[in-house]
Amino acid sequence: MTIKDIAAYCGVSVSTVSRVINDHPDVSPAVREQVNEAIRKLHFVPNNSARSLVVSRSTAIGVVSRGVDNPFLSLLIRVLSREIHDRGYTMVLHQIPTQADEIQAAALLQREKKLLGVIFLGGRFNYTEEELRQLTVPFVCCTYTNTFGNLSSSAYSSVSIHDEREAEKAVRLLVDNGHRRIAVVLDDPADNSIGQLRFQGYRRALEAEGIDYDPALAVVTGDYAMSAAYDGVCRLLDSGADFTALLAISDSLAIAAIKALTDRGRRVPEDCSVIAIDGLEMSSFTVPTLTTLCQPAEEMAEESVRMLTALIEGTGVHRHKLMETTLRRGGSVARLARA
Amino acid sequence: MTIKDIAAYCGVSVSTVSRVINDHPDVSPAVREQVNEAIRKLHFVPNNSARSLVVSRSTAIGVVSRGVDNPFLSLLIRVLSREIHDRGYTMVLHQIPTQADEIQAAALLQREKKLLGVIFLGGRFNYTEEELRQLTVPFVCCTYTNTFGNLSSSAYSSVSIHDEREAEKAVRLLVDNGHRRIAVVLDDPADNSIGQLRFQGYRRALEAEGIDYDPALAVVTGDYAMSAAYDGVCRLLDSGADFTALLAISDSLAIAAIKALTDRGRRVPEDCSVIAIDGLEMSSFTVPTLTTLCQPAEEMAEESVRMLTALIEGTGVHRHKLMETTLRRGGSVARLARA
Repeated sequence: MTIKDIAAYCGVSVSTVSRVINDHPDVSPAVREQVNEAIRKLHFVPNNSARSLVVSRSTAIGVVSRGVDNPFLSLLIRVLSREIHDRGYTMVLHQIPTQADEIQAAALLQREKKLLGVIFLGGRFNYTEEELRQLTVPFVCCTYTNTFGNLSSSAYSSVSIHDEREAEKAVRLLVDNGHRRIAVVLDDPADNSIGQLRFQGYRRALEAEGIDYDPALAVVTGDYAMSAAYDGVCRLLDSGADFTALLAISDSLAIAAIKALTDRGRRVPEDCSVIAIDGLEMSSFTVPTLTTLCQPAEEMAEESVRMLTALIEGTGVHRHKLMETTLRRGGSVARLARA
Repeated sequence: MTIKDIAAYCGVSVSTVSRVINDHPDVSPAVREQVNEAIRKLHFVPNNSARSLVVSRSTAIGVVSRGVDNPFLSLLIRVLSREIHDRGYTMVLHQIPTQADEIQAAALLQREKKLLGVIFLGGRFNYTEEELRQLTVPFVCCTYTNTFGNLSSSAYSSVSIHDEREAEKAVRLLVDNGHRRIAVVLDDPADNSIGQLRFQGYRRALEAEGIDYDPALAVVTGDYAMSAAYDGVCRLLDSGADFTALLAISDSLAIAAIKALTDRGRRVPEDCSVIAIDGLEMSSFTVPTLTTLCQPAEEMAEESVRMLTALIEGTGVHRHKLMETTLRRGGSVARLARA
């Protein structure tokens, strides 16, 4: 018994029967009644997923993205979506706020959606084995790794840049241009995540150059909200703090910082150089173009999906891939002019 | 028979058994062999979704997003993700390029993923009944409606702004500030979509003000790529075209236009006013802040999910909701100074 039999029985088209079954309103009441009558009489069970129980093998891969304010993650999600789909899986996307816990979110999602595996975007770096017991499917940390936790490296996969070293590189570029009073804009110096590592890189670069760290030059925003970065940099400027360059730990924070500097009458880069890490398309359109260390976002997302599907399909083991940034020379860094 | 029985039988922890089942490599070969032996002997079938066939009712809602270059859509996806999840459904996100056909993509997705319904983000406005036969689940057009097609309004739902009227409003604001030479930056004046409608609004506003339309002032980018908008506005400036204001049909195109104007030595708004439609957070951080008509993105996404779940649950009929923008007065529009 199929929808065709019902159509033939009633002398109407298959699409009319389909419309009745799916409650589309563009069917006359008389035809609707006739079709419903036939469905009852012939004991037809519409075989579409909206009504029937289906027997299926899950194809779901969870993507748990933490930090909804970060446009860098939107870019990764776009590539993950394409790669997961192209490999015959289904992406189940769950975006959670920065304050939420991604492991709990993933464990819940795993049970509810029968996930085969999970890709974490932008999580903590301090997972413990105990926490991870909740999660019984393989997972890949995309854009970070478990630097501060006690997980065995053979218990999870990761694709990341070396955040600390990249931040060091960015600061060194400023120092090479003569800057020694360098501010930093970051979410949180103790977030057990990217902020903490990039802040460590900033401190380490200063130390290597014999520059004392000045806490007054650290703008802590709490999260990746651009408005908080804007307000923070305005306050820094209003305090009369002396600095000639600024590292923002993400492009979006840098865009807000450039706006704050400009609104307060400082020219970028003449009065203040700005550098960041990420490489958003959007930051090619700031005035001046943002100088930034670009993460290989496309490759990172592709590699994450490759790793996870290999684990799911039993053809791979847990691996850790470290990638390099490439410098985009924008116009936001200049050699320090004053003596 | 559960994983606990296997653990007790072998005298190992539950997590060790779990690691063996999930092929985590951090288990000694001897223990691995022992656990696998017990699994065989006790005929244990691991009950996780990676291995077993599961009987389940689909909870999948498809979100088909066309135009991956548009950051406005990322914002909507974030809200859709939250709303769909909170109502107990699963978002299956599929992002397709601007050139791809969203109906075909959705029909395929419907079959593959057993969708209960579909939300389209950023599609064409010219669907025909024939095309829509492929899709047998209810759908909602989010951010647009079927202006150019022949669908009965009772066959689908939509949440949109009145694109034509909003573009008219934007141009009128420029005219009210004394501008009569107004350029336009758009993807395509005949895209059967938002570009076409907003372009019609631009033309209609000029006409109403008795201003002749000058095709030389239309920058057509082909899609929403910011680089194309940047290049297009640079070419327009290099051609010596005379204009004192510019409407970009989206914020991201406006951000690129402001960059082009500034790089070519034109001050915004002193030498050229810029207005747009969308209301991205990012465009609050351009220099100057972009003046734009903000779409109620959060509300649009929420309403779309509300409509679709009501249809799925049989408590709603197809509806069409028109929403209004609100003007964000940035600093990118100024009264025309010259005589």
